Amino acid sequence: MSSTTGQVIRCKAAVAWEAGKPLVIEEVEVAPPQAMEVRLKILFTSLCHTDVYFWEAKGQTPMFPRIFGHEAGGIVESVGEGVTELKPGDHVLPVFTGECKECRHCKSEESNMCDLLRINTDRGVMLNDGKSRFSIRGQPIYHFVGTSTFSEYTVVHVGCVAKINPAAPLDKVCLLSCGISTGLGATLNVAKPKKGSSVAIFGLGAVGLAAAEGARIAGASRIIGVDLNSGRFNEAKKFGVTEFVNPKDYNKPVQEVIAEMTNGGVDRSVECTGSINAMISAFECVHDGWGVAVLVGVPSKDDSFKTHPINVLSEKTLRGTFFGNYKPRSDLPSVVEKYMNKELELEKFITHEVPFSEINKAFEYMLSGAGLRCIIRMDA
Amino acid sequence: MSSTTGQVIRCKAAVAWEAGKPLVIEEVEVAPPQAMEVRLKILFTSLCHTDVYFWEAKGQTPMFPRIFGHEAGGIVESVGEGVTELKPGDHVLPVFTGECKECRHCKSEESNMCDLLRINTDRGVMLNDGKSRFSIRGQPIYHFVGTSTFSEYTVVHVGCVAKINPAAPLDKVCLLSCGISTGLGATLNVAKPKKGSSVAIFGLGAVGLAAAEGARIAGASRIIGVDLNSGRFNEAKKFGVTEFVNPKDYNKPVQEVIAEMTNGGVDRSVECTGSINAMISAFECVHDGWGVAVLVGVPSKDDSFKTHPINVLSEKTLRGTFFGNYKPRSDLPSVVEKYMNKELELEKFITHEVPFSEINKAFEYMLSGAGLRCIIRMDA
Ligand SMILES: NC(=O)c1ccc[n+]([C@@H]2O[C@H](COP(=O)([O-])OP(=O)(O)OC[C@H]3O[C@@H](n4cnc5c(N)ncnc54)[C@H](O)[C@@H]3O)[C@@H](O)[C@H]2O)c1
Ligand SMILES: NC(=O)c1ccc[n+]([C@@H]2O[C@H](COP(=O)([O-])OP(=O)(O)OC[C@H]3O[C@@H](n4cnc5c(N)ncnc54)[C@H](O)[C@@H]3O)[C@@H](O)[C@H]2O)c1
Ligand SMILES: [Zn+2]
Ligand SMILES: [Zn+2]
Ligand SMILES: [Zn+2]
Ligand SMILES: [Zn+2]
Repeated sequence: MSSTTGQVIRCKAAVAWEAGKPLVIEEVEVAPPQAMEVRLKILFTSLCHTDVYFWEAKGQTPMFPRIFGHEAGGIVESVGEGVTELKPGDHVLPVFTGECKECRHCKSEESNMCDLLRINTDRGVMLNDGKSRFSIRGQPIYHFVGTSTFSEYTVVHVGCVAKINPAAPLDKVCLLSCGISTGLGATLNVAKPKKGSSVAIFGLGAVGLAAAEGARIAGASRIIGVDLNSGRFNEAKKFGVTEFVNPKDYNKPVQEVIAEMTNGGVDRSVECTGSINAMISAFECVHDGWGVAVLVGVPSKDDSFKTHPINVLSEKTLRGTFFGNYKPRSDLPSVVEKYMNKELELEKFITHEVPFSEINKAFEYMLSGAGLRCIIRMDA
Repeated sequence: MSSTTGQVIRCKAAVAWEAGKPLVIEEVEVAPPQAMEVRLKILFTSLCHTDVYFWEAKGQTPMFPRIFGHEAGGIVESVGEGVTELKPGDHVLPVFTGECKECRHCKSEESNMCDLLRINTDRGVMLNDGKSRFSIRGQPIYHFVGTSTFSEYTVVHVGCVAKINPAAPLDKVCLLSCGISTGLGATLNVAKPKKGSSVAIFGLGAVGLAAAEGARIAGASRIIGVDLNSGRFNEAKKFGVTEFVNPKDYNKPVQEVIAEMTNGGVDRSVECTGSINAMISAFECVHDGWGVAVLVGVPSKDDSFKTHPINVLSEKTLRGTFFGNYKPRSDLPSVVEKYMNKELELEKFITHEVPFSEINKAFEYMLSGAGLRCIIRMDA
């Protein structure tokens, strides 16, 4: 048991005081974990678009001051009452969506959308008492998606913590907390391409490239990358993408272009853009008889998915996925093992690295579209 | 070998001379089967909505004179060159869509949409020579979907003929040529409900009731029938339907009604109406995380399937099916066995029976919405 168990910890955290304003490194107080909670020492975190959306708070409910961050790796510092599966020293990945292991979703083989711990972007407090574990001189600071990893220490519900192989380098596998697992699982768990098949990936951001990585691991022979930004194409080759289509280069719908390239359509498609047009194209570009399209991107509130129902009747399948259909506690340890046995490559997603004190640079890289993932080292 | 082998056969057929006008029993000449064709003696046939649609020819390409009919059972009279799998005397079901066993679809485990023999409602001739095998005093009479079973003898491509157990009563299993297999397979092969699950069936015509029969066979514990016509409800109980919803009885969308009845949505739904509204409701009424909706109904040309993409992202699946995903030659024999071993009940679909001479009565029953299937006895 560490000397801090049961004590308030004072440590550094990057606090967002206002929408869109640079984060400020502050000394915060982190309360001890309550029932079914664990307190984690975060060693590495990275930045995902979702942090940026809620920090910008355009169209999202603003909730400030708040500590963002949800892709991370760390070590258990102490555990609250009732926590039996984790102990201080365990290596873990906090996850923005949880697994209570009790609800209908957790008990279903098919779903990972836990009734209790499903992502909730509007809740800035812990479930146990409806309060925050973070404060600055008595002022509570809101949590973000139950993880708030832009802090040296954070408190997380035990259902949102995956215990992983302690030999795994946390500065790499921290990426598996969100975007990479989302794309990878969309392909491996939901689209399930067969060896030798063709797969179209819409959107070549980190999520789409992880979906391409999944297609490569599954042994797809053609991986067609689709993006409006031709700048993405060169990098995508590292992820197994074999052909590129920029919809802007054609004066017909991209689904027709893909159908012509593939004698009627691809076997599988995975949409990782958030654009409703890409969602419709991704569905319509799969082959009749056996094609499966998987939607990953988060759409806008007013979007409408429209297609002629004959596209469905011709035996196409449309599926959605959330966090790549992985159950965080049950499934993430095996994704870490995929990295450990060199099936899955993570290094190529890491294009930047900054010390915690320069976390705002990670925001700048993302806003300018430079690179894929920036690792933020908490100890530096 | 029968004495008619290689000869033109003169027999009775019900000819549609004009759209929407009563069929006329005529003496027709049926040419011998050419390469990869078989000539069948039809013993029983029944009437399906698709015959009526193309006979009415409202919005369909009119093609007259024509011999309709595609749900039937018969016996092989003679076979053309190259036919090795069938011989005179075999008991068979002709099917409106075929299985060449050579194309990509036939070789795929997932598809039954044969490139060569997929249903083609606009072709009124045989593939081998682009001509009809039917004539009256030299005037060719068009075929319908490659089957034309409203004739004592007909010529069919070998790929559209399923050889079945000769002990099976053809006056019952003839129903498996189209509608009943379509509904049954939509549930058993595509929706695949688990034992104890909940299933909503939209549309309680013959196809929907066959889908309900599939849910009963699969051991679903709640089978919710949805139809705009409350008159369908009483009969549906025989098919295992446990609860009824008429969307007209509520002033909110039926998907909400079903979600309330089932704590968030049904596990599976099968749409058998052809109505775009029902298709959308069928998709939206399934549970997030694991719900699967299957579309069977044939939509109108101008329909648009519209839904908010969040419905997809919450891990719902939308699938289409054609002929219940059965491959006619490979799979129908086993459906016949399901009837033979009393797993599947067919008698309850048969509400009328008429001699061939009164075939127009079968049209009247269907147009007035009376009953489900009318068996037409060719020998009477
Ligand atoms: N848990 C989850 O399910 C989960 C997790 C992370 C991200 N996401 C979602 O996945 C999506 C992708 O995330 P990301 O971080 O990779 O985003 P990103 O912005 O880095 O990449 C998106 C890419 O899509 C391209 N694009 C946009 N519109 C397009 C169109 N119409 N056709 C083709 N390409 C188009 C852009 O040019 C860009 O390269 C987002 O919608 C995000 O919200 C979901
Ligand atoms: N091979 C195939 O895939 C195949 C084969 C046969 C039939 N079908 C299609 O299956 C569908 C059903 O065929 P059927 O012969 O049972 O038709 P049917 O007309 O006997 O039954 C359809 C039922 O749907 C109900 N209905 C219509 N709109 C509705 C709505 N909005 N909500 C709820 N109920 C509604 C009607 O009241 C009717 O009882 C048709 O579209 C048909 O074309 C497909
Ligand atoms: Zn994320
Ligand atoms: Zn749960
Ligand atoms: Zn074929
Ligand atoms: Zn039919």
